[in-house]
Amino acid sequence: MKPKTLTLVCGVLMTFLSAKAQEPMRLMPWPAEVQRGQGYLIIDKTFRVSFEGYRDELLERAATRLVRNLSAKTGLSLLPEPDPAGQTASLRVRCDGADANFLNPQADESYRLEVTPQGAELHAHGPAGVLRGMASFFQLVGLDQVGFRAPAVKIVDRPRFAWRGLMLDVARHFLTLDALKRNLDAMELVKMNVLELHLSDGEGFRVESKVYPKLQQAGSNGDFYTQQQIRELVAYARDRGVRVVPEIEMPGHCKAILVGYPELAAAPGPYVMGPDLNVMNGTLDPTREEAYQFLSRLLEEMCALFPDPYFHTGGDEVNGVQWAQSASIQAFMKARGLKDKHELQAYFTERVRQILARNGKTMVGWDEVLQPNLAKDVVVQAWRSSKMVERSAGMGHTTLVSAGYYLDYNLPAAAHYGIDPFDSRAQGLPRQAVEMVKGTPVASYITDDNMADDSPLMTPEEEKRIAGGIACMWGEFVWNEKEEMMVWPRVGAIAERFWSPAQVKDVALMYRRLEGVDADLQFLGLRHHSNQAMMLQRLAGEHDAGPLATLAEAVEPVKNLARYAPRYRVAMATGQGIDNTVVTTRFVDALPAESLEAVRFHATVRRMLAGGEGSDELRGEVRITLARWRDNDMQLQIVARDSFPLPETIPASQDLKELAEVGLSALALWESKQQANADWLERQRAVLARHRKIAEGCSHLLAAMLAPPPPHELMSAIAPAIEELVNAAATGR
Amino acid sequence: MKPKTLTLVCGVLMTFLSAKAQEPMRLMPWPAEVQRGQGYLIIDKTFRVSFEGYRDELLERAATRLVRNLSAKTGLSLLPEPDPAGQTASLRVRCDGADANFLNPQADESYRLEVTPQGAELHAHGPAGVLRGMASFFQLVGLDQVGFRAPAVKIVDRPRFAWRGLMLDVARHFLTLDALKRNLDAMELVKMNVLELHLSDGEGFRVESKVYPKLQQAGSNGDFYTQQQIRELVAYARDRGVRVVPEIEMPGHCKAILVGYPELAAAPGPYVMGPDLNVMNGTLDPTREEAYQFLSRLLEEMCALFPDPYFHTGGDEVNGVQWAQSASIQAFMKARGLKDKHELQAYFTERVRQILARNGKTMVGWDEVLQPNLAKDVVVQAWRSSKMVERSAGMGHTTLVSAGYYLDYNLPAAAHYGIDPFDSRAQGLPRQAVEMVKGTPVASYITDDNMADDSPLMTPEEEKRIAGGIACMWGEFVWNEKEEMMVWPRVGAIAERFWSPAQVKDVALMYRRLEGVDADLQFLGLRHHSNQAMMLQRLAGEHDAGPLATLAEAVEPVKNLARYAPRYRVAMATGQGIDNTVVTTRFVDALPAESLEAVRFHATVRRMLAGGEGSDELRGEVRITLARWRDNDMQLQIVARDSFPLPETIPASQDLKELAEVGLSALALWESKQQANADWLERQRAVLARHRKIAEGCSHLLAAMLAPPPPHELMSAIAPAIEELVNAAATGR
Repeated sequence: MKPKTLTLVCGVLMTFLSAKAQEPMRLMPWPAEVQRGQGYLIIDKTFRVSFEGYRDELLERAATRLVRNLSAKTGLSLLPEPDPAGQTASLRVRCDGADANFLNPQADESYRLEVTPQGAELHAHGPAGVLRGMASFFQLVGLDQVGFRAPAVKIVDRPRFAWRGLMLDVARHFLTLDALKRNLDAMELVKMNVLELHLSDGEGFRVESKVYPKLQQAGSNGDFYTQQQIRELVAYARDRGVRVVPEIEMPGHCKAILVGYPELAAAPGPYVMGPDLNVMNGTLDPTREEAYQFLSRLLEEMCALFPDPYFHTGGDEVNGVQWAQSASIQAFMKARGLKDKHELQAYFTERVRQILARNGKTMVGWDEVLQPNLAKDVVVQAWRSSKMVERSAGMGHTTLVSAGYYLDYNLPAAAHYGIDPFDSRAQGLPRQAVEMVKGTPVASYITDDNMADDSPLMTPEEEKRIAGGIACMWGEFVWNEKEEMMVWPRVGAIAERFWSPAQVKDVALMYRRLEGVDADLQFLGLRHHSNQAMMLQRLAGEHDAGPLATLAEAVEPVKNLARYAPRYRVAMATGQGIDNTVVTTRFVDALPAESLEAVRFHATVRRMLAGGEGSDELRGEVRITLARWRDNDMQLQIVARDSFPLPETIPASQDLKELAEVGLSALALWESKQQANADWLERQRAVLARHRKIAEGCSHLLAAMLAPPPPHELMSAIAPAIEELVNAAATGR
Repeated sequence: MKPKTLTLVCGVLMTFLSAKAQEPMRLMPWPAEVQRGQGYLIIDKTFRVSFEGYRDELLERAATRLVRNLSAKTGLSLLPEPDPAGQTASLRVRCDGADANFLNPQADESYRLEVTPQGAELHAHGPAGVLRGMASFFQLVGLDQVGFRAPAVKIVDRPRFAWRGLMLDVARHFLTLDALKRNLDAMELVKMNVLELHLSDGEGFRVESKVYPKLQQAGSNGDFYTQQQIRELVAYARDRGVRVVPEIEMPGHCKAILVGYPELAAAPGPYVMGPDLNVMNGTLDPTREEAYQFLSRLLEEMCALFPDPYFHTGGDEVNGVQWAQSASIQAFMKARGLKDKHELQAYFTERVRQILARNGKTMVGWDEVLQPNLAKDVVVQAWRSSKMVERSAGMGHTTLVSAGYYLDYNLPAAAHYGIDPFDSRAQGLPRQAVEMVKGTPVASYITDDNMADDSPLMTPEEEKRIAGGIACMWGEFVWNEKEEMMVWPRVGAIAERFWSPAQVKDVALMYRRLEGVDADLQFLGLRHHSNQAMMLQRLAGEHDAGPLATLAEAVEPVKNLARYAPRYRVAMATGQGIDNTVVTTRFVDALPAESLEAVRFHATVRRMLAGGEGSDELRGEVRITLARWRDNDMQLQIVARDSFPLPETIPASQDLKELAEVGLSALALWESKQQANADWLERQRAVLARHRKIAEGCSHLLAAMLAPPPPHELMSAIAPAIEELVNAAATGR
């Protein structure tokens, strides 16, 4: 028997060889082992799914869903019910039996899928593997010169990590049940298996409590999930092999709780909804038994509502302001020998952990809960830096990695894709950050634990404790119509990082497969594109939104929380709280974090410059695209004239025109094979240098605090590709 | 007191004066009387609705819906619940009271809406008027240089016709409940008030009967509405002031009934689902008492399910084949002195009418029921020609006009808009049609009643019997993902024809307001655009769908049922039935009936040629658009190479390139003010002549039967605008 690692590496290598030799199969996440076969399985209106051996209602619904999704993808009228006859079905599913660990981290998600021109066979030990294999089959079906087909292939697949999650912040801006369901449909497509719901925060409490109804009544704007809706959501997720892990934040980030129950607070209040300093300062009083009686009853109710064996009680960013100001709390600490806020929080954490344990749940907490005596069974979600990943694993905790996977940072898919959960040096703030934020409200939250580090890689023993990762979509700038375009398809790259072997890391191939996810999501009904179209139409008013869509291809929002800079600046000036429930309708709000059109353009430019087959077509494509971008400014300005939110974007549109002209001129020079004139080169490089400078100012909250980015909060997404064109023209290569 | 008609005409005139003097307000249908005031009402996050006087739950839900829709339109977070305080609300609603006629054709839908910079007041006698006024208010809100605003205006409005309907054929292709709800949302926007559901036909029976369950079980592919769903639909429609009028077809178009209950048929069968001659031949046996016993029980059940006082039992296109072949039926006719199939059908119609009457319902029937002794209370839906409108009204029947309003004809909005329900000469087949279809299966359905006519206009007495119109969306080429893009926004023009004064008929203004409807529909969640994007992505496979979207701007599907020609040709050759349940995924399937981009381009060309203010910008816009269309072919061909359904569209793409080049060359010449060279002109006119010839072949089923249109079944939507450009260049004007 070959050792397992070798098989895996071989599988990965074979995979890329075959993918490069032929067309890349649009699988994402890329499977552990893939072997391309000869020919294709045709998908036509006779397509059916059948089961051999074990079947249950969940599997039957999954088969029906697969067929309905294939109907949407192909436009074929397919019979959705599984074929009872069996042998004539195009996809035969063999499941060994039920899995007692289904919807646990121990669930068996492995599967084998073999597609031949005669049919497809999917074999899995348990239902979770069937779901994952069906997602692969759905992705394999594509259209080509001949018809809708799936390539012949043999896949042996299993996840690298057991927890592959998406956290949605429904507290700051509520997301509808329908939106959550669409996210679950999309998660199933890319084999994610944990939906972490950030149900409460300073800005809102979003789940109905029958025991303490003032939680949702006083602690929200009326938008919350009823218990019936939660049950519906959990069932919907279960059908897709997705666990729902709830998070109720404590002892900080809990002002919305204190609005209804101020008697639980560490300071007298009053607590009212809306932006004020209590959003960050409002804290439970961990010294009062009444608080634990309240949490006992509340958590008992919530633990019964959410069947998952894990329960997240937050624990991050307790600033300790109220605790320091309370004489009774200080007295309590002194009496118990608790020397600082961390030890007091550790006391609180252990009390809450015991409540959860009585309800049969394992606690999950943000990495601030990682105090010396933290009970070993607590799962730590490391977010501040990957150093915290290493520390948590080093202290023996099952660890979930979120550092490096924050979707609100507006980073390209490639940035997250390049971070391995095992690499404890991967993610954190630069060392100079502390200096930069001195005197800002941010400062109190930044400690050495946030810093990027050069600590050694983890030991194999520590690596075993990394259970997976959770991509986090925080909601300060994200609301219902915006969420899907922020998360999808970008999170597909993270889903691949959490599922696929670590060696799968070719960025160009990732982006080509991500485009497949992008298309497939439309067939599943995701609204990442249609919501953007609606938002652009809203801005266009009585005009056609086309010029806005064209500009949107070529620009991106500022990065790494730089959009917070104006909010923080106001907060610093006024000493007031920050309103993170604001909804705005600016052009920057109508953009996803990353322009896939710009990524595609960059790839086309590279293929063109590399020469070879089809380069005539590539030159034509680059030229036409640049001309379209150049010509857009005139039409955009006509639209902007009649729309109050748009004038701020005109400089970005003019910049696009200028960059497109630089690109066209470089392209013409490169095609002519003439020597670049020094004057010309200097002019172009001056334009590009200006864009690099803008990009630097847009690169990070801290940079943006020091030197504000342009008011439109946009940066060019195509400048790097234009720079390559200019360099090629300059060097004649 | 001024006579009513004069007020009305004055209102209309004032309206257009003010609309032309300032920006056109985006109201559709245009109100009976409009007077633009000074200034605007700002819509910001303080916007609330309040009620004075009468309010009920339906009105409160309507207010909440209006605010939610305004939230979607503006992106503002608005409080959806009506403001109990009242005086501070931006829109104050005063409803005099409940209306005993609500959801009857006698309902009072009139309203007054006054918007000033200080606030808006809506006054109506009853709930229906409130709904109609809210739709106007929603349309008035737009974005401009200052903010989201509604112009100050005084509107006094009432409908011209009481029935303003949309018929959806859910028999041939099923439409989901969600799709019907989206249609109802859209109907509310344009003040339509009747959803006619064509629930049964040869191809399917789509409503659950508990009394005769084989109707939906044997008579459908499993897609039907449960009774619970119907109740949900009816309640949803009621909330929007829309009546649901069900249609169950008989005695023809009823094969789906006969599959489960063959004993009711006029010929022994067997009857099986699927395309065969029985789709048209299958008929109830009107001589058997068992048939009436069956209908009594079925209609009793259905009449209880649908609360509307009207019930449609079809009655069209009974070809009489089975009746002629049955000895017992012939004997019955002889015994009763019924001299032909028409008199036998009249006997049947009267029996069914009595069943409906026992259930408290008024019968509606297609115009074939219009036999000499038809009971006077039967409402006739005239579809074959507008001559039938006149005949029905002349015979004293309340008449609904569908002739001229068939949405499956793929006609531009302007075509339907130009037809007045009172003009009995407006719509029908050309006289030579009978000759053209001789020997085709179509022939037996075409009689003198289908012919366009030069009969005199109706008398005022007859006009009073025209209760309104129903736009019909037949389902042979329309399925769930296709329906919204076929109906919306196009039917908005018909809604205006049925609501607005007859004098409102400026086509250019109609199209500008139709674009407002198009945008508003996106905010309501309609899928006419997002479904097209999905269909184009399906065709693009692994490519970006952009080049397909660009081609889609400039072409349209063939007109007037010409897409049936290939199906009929096969049917004639084989003697088999036609399969009208087919679903195809060709490029032509992904197109709406009319390209609004082409309409807009044509308008821009005209404004440019007319000269005057802004003509530099207009020239730029025309040039950039033409260049984009010219450049698209290369990129489309790259996509088409990898997609099996696309190669057929390449000639259409090449034609677009050629036409765009003609346009660019004409534009350059016109701009240069040079004399057109005779050679040049001849070459351009040859291209245009070829396109006119293609367009003729695409113009009608009958033309297409004689000379098949191109296999792609597309015609240029921009050729007429290009022709104007060439003419302008030729004449130097």
